[in-house]
Amino acid sequence: MRWNLPPDDLPTAWFNVAPHLPAPLEPPLHPATREPIGPDDLAPLFPMALIAQEVSTEPTVDIPGPVLDVLRLWRPTPLVRATRLEAALGTPARIYYKDESVSPAGSHKPNTAVPQAYYNKVEGVPRLTTETGAGQWGSALSFATSLFGLECMVYMVRASFEQKPYRRMLMETWGGSVVPSPVDDPGHPGSLGSAISDAVRDAVGRSDSHYALGSVLNHVLLHQTVIGLEAKQQLELAGERLPDVVIGSCGGGSNLGGISLPFVPDDGVRLLAVEPASCPTLTEGHFDYDFGDTAGLTPLLPMYTLGHEFIPPTIHAGGLRYHGDSPIISALVRAGRMEAVAYAQSKVFEAGVQFARTQGAVPAPETTHAIRAAIDEALVAKELGEERVILFSYSGHGLLDLSAYDDYLHGRLTD
Amino acid sequence: MRWNLPPDDLPTAWFNVAPHLPAPLEPPLHPATREPIGPDDLAPLFPMALIAQEVSTEPTVDIPGPVLDVLRLWRPTPLVRATRLEAALGTPARIYYKDESVSPAGSHKPNTAVPQAYYNKVEGVPRLTTETGAGQWGSALSFATSLFGLECMVYMVRASFEQKPYRRMLMETWGGSVVPSPVDDPGHPGSLGSAISDAVRDAVGRSDSHYALGSVLNHVLLHQTVIGLEAKQQLELAGERLPDVVIGSCGGGSNLGGISLPFVPDDGVRLLAVEPASCPTLTEGHFDYDFGDTAGLTPLLPMYTLGHEFIPPTIHAGGLRYHGDSPIISALVRAGRMEAVAYAQSKVFEAGVQFARTQGAVPAPETTHAIRAAIDEALVAKELGEERVILFSYSGHGLLDLSAYDDYLHGRLTD
Repeated sequence: MRWNLPPDDLPTAWFNVAPHLPAPLEPPLHPATREPIGPDDLAPLFPMALIAQEVSTEPTVDIPGPVLDVLRLWRPTPLVRATRLEAALGTPARIYYKDESVSPAGSHKPNTAVPQAYYNKVEGVPRLTTETGAGQWGSALSFATSLFGLECMVYMVRASFEQKPYRRMLMETWGGSVVPSPVDDPGHPGSLGSAISDAVRDAVGRSDSHYALGSVLNHVLLHQTVIGLEAKQQLELAGERLPDVVIGSCGGGSNLGGISLPFVPDDGVRLLAVEPASCPTLTEGHFDYDFGDTAGLTPLLPMYTLGHEFIPPTIHAGGLRYHGDSPIISALVRAGRMEAVAYAQSKVFEAGVQFARTQGAVPAPETTHAIRAAIDEALVAKELGEERVILFSYSGHGLLDLSAYDDYLHGRLTD
Repeated sequence: MRWNLPPDDLPTAWFNVAPHLPAPLEPPLHPATREPIGPDDLAPLFPMALIAQEVSTEPTVDIPGPVLDVLRLWRPTPLVRATRLEAALGTPARIYYKDESVSPAGSHKPNTAVPQAYYNKVEGVPRLTTETGAGQWGSALSFATSLFGLECMVYMVRASFEQKPYRRMLMETWGGSVVPSPVDDPGHPGSLGSAISDAVRDAVGRSDSHYALGSVLNHVLLHQTVIGLEAKQQLELAGERLPDVVIGSCGGGSNLGGISLPFVPDDGVRLLAVEPASCPTLTEGHFDYDFGDTAGLTPLLPMYTLGHEFIPPTIHAGGLRYHGDSPIISALVRAGRMEAVAYAQSKVFEAGVQFARTQGAVPAPETTHAIRAAIDEALVAKELGEERVILFSYSGHGLLDLSAYDDYLHGRLTD
C-alpha cells in the first residue's frame, strides 16, 4: 500500500528543530583560534542565506518558490506500507517507509543539494566545489547545479573514483566535473577527509566559487525535514496517529535528521539512529569538540566523534563512514531524546536481501541499516504481541551498489 | 508537474486491441509443418491462461487480484509534464511522459513478468526459464518469480554476462540463477537468438518448467496496456482531451504497445514507433512470416522482419536489437494506423543528455529513442506555432547503462 501526496501538498516551509532542542547548541569554534566563529568566517564557503539558516531559531523557514519547483520533479515522495515484509515476518507491527530513492539521483541527498545550488545562484556564485566518497552526494549536487546552470567540481575519493566508474559517469552526464582526490598524490587511495580538504582549498582559492556540504550542518538537516513533514501527513492519510518509533540510518545525520526531526516535539515517539558497527560514532564515540575533516581545516563542532583521525574500515555503506556526527543528532542522543544502535555488515545485508525478495526494491547499503532495525523492532512487537507502528527512511536504492550484494550472496562479505 | 493516481485507480482489466485491428491477425505457423499452431503446441512452454489470452478477441481481460496486489507496489506510475524540457526547447507543445522507470526492476518489463509468473504459479509450474540480452527482461522476471516463490533460470547473452555484471547481480539478489549463453560453447559471445534457444530447450526438456517471453507476443502487449490506460486517465486529470501523438521506442514492441494500443480506437491520435537506424525493422524490413529466434525453434510469426539471421550491430540500446517485431505492431504499421521512424545512436544520446540536464532523470538508451522523437515533434510544433500534445513512454532509467553515456560524452560512440 502506498500513499502519494499531490505535488501541491509539498511542504512550503522547512521544520527547524532548534526551538525544540533540550538546550541551545554550543557554537562551532574557529580551527585556529578556538573562538566561536561568526558569519564572516563562513562567507568564503557558503552564501549568507545558508549561514543564516545555520543559526536560525525560527520554528520554520520558508522554502523558496524556485526550490519548490525543482523538488516537485519527484516530491512528495511515496509513503509505503511494507505489507509483504510484515507478512514474511509474521508480525502484528505495521511497517511504513518513506521512499526517498525516487529522486533523480536515487537518494535523499537532492533535498539539500537543490536549495544549496539555488541560494548560491541567487548570490551570484557560478561554481560550487564539493567532495564525495561513494558518489551519492556528488551525484546529487551535479544534478542540482545542472538545473540552476552552475558549474560543479567534485573531488572524489580516489579509491572510489577507480572502483565505482558508474557514479563518476552519472555526475558527468549531468555536466559535473569529477577528479580523483588527493589531487596532489596520484598514488594515494584518498579519504573523505582528503577530499574535503581539496574541495575547501579550491573554493577559498577562487573568487567565483563556494563549497557545499552534504550532511552534518544544521542547514543541511533543515532542508531534509521535508521527509518527516510529508511522512506525518501521509501517516494520517493511512489512518495512523503517530508512529511508535522513527528509524533512520546515520552517517553524518542528514537522512536520519530528515525523517526524525519533525517528530522531536511528539512525546512518546521513539527516535532511533542506526549506524555500522565498524564506525560506531554514537554508540561508542565520545562527545567533544572535533574537526569535521582529517586535515583540521574545518571549524570544530560539538558532537559525538571517534576522533578526526579515525579511518573507518572500507565497508560497503560508504555514506556511513564518518568519524563524527551532526551536532543536532549528537545533542538529541546526549539528552536521551534519541536512541542509537549499531549493526555488523552481514546482518544489514541479510535484511536488505529479505526486503528485496518481499517488497521488490533493492535498497542501498546505507538503507539496509534502517531496514535491519525496522525488522528487529517488528520482531520484538511479534514477541510482545504488540501492534507497533514503525516508520523508517528508505534513503536510497542500491542499483549502483550491486557489487555489495554480490559479495554478500557469494560469501565474500566480512564484518 | 506530475499526476499520480491512488493505488485503487489501477486499471482492473487489460485492454485487448484485437477487436480494433484493421483485420484479424494471421495465425502463427508451426516451425516444422508450417500449419497454424494450436493451444497444444504451445502447452509445453506456456500456461493455458496465457495461451488463451494470445488468441482472445474479448475487448478486455480481467487482471487477477494477486497480480493487482503486486503491481500496486509501484503502479499506477506517474504521468509527468516535462515543463523544463519544453522551456529549453521554447516550444508551444505540451510534452507528457509516463514514467515506467519507477518499477523495482527499473523498466516497464515487470508489467508482464508479474502476470506471467502468477499464471504459471496457478498452473503449478514451479520453475521458469527465459533469455535476456542486456538484462532488463531477466531482471524483471527474477523480481516477479521471487514474489511468487518460483525458481527462475536466466540464459544471458555471454557478451553481456561478461560486460554487464551489475544486471547479473541484480537478478541474483532476487534469487534468480543466471548462466551465460550459449551454454555449450564457452568461447562464443552469444546472441539473443542463441539464448532463446537455450531457454526453450531447457523448458521443453523438464516437466517442472515453462518458458517466458518478454515481448513480441499478443499476451505480453496485452499486459503492458496498463501503461496507456493509466495515461488516458491522467491526461484527463491534467486537463487534456487526447494527445496529438503517442510515441514509444520499439524493439519487440511491448513498451510501444503498452503506451499506444489503448489509443488505437481514437481516430486522429497519431501513433509513432521509434527504432534504431542500425536495426530498422519497421522502416526497412519486409512483412513476412519469420522465426522469432535465430535457430528456427519458435513458431513462424507474421511480422516485419530483417530476416531471422540478421545480427544487429552492438548498439547500447540492447533492448531494441531484434530482427522482427510484434505481429500486432506490424499489423498496425502495415495498415497505416501507426508510423515508424529510425534514429542513429548519436542523435538519441544527444536527446538523452538534454533530458537529464533539464528534467533531472537519466533515461535508458532504449528510452532516449522516444525522447528524440518527442523533441523533434515539439520542434515541428514550434516551427508551425502549434499547441501540440505529445505523450511518450519513459520506459526505463539508465542507471545500469551509464557506460553508454560515458562513451557518448567522451566521443567514443559510433553510429
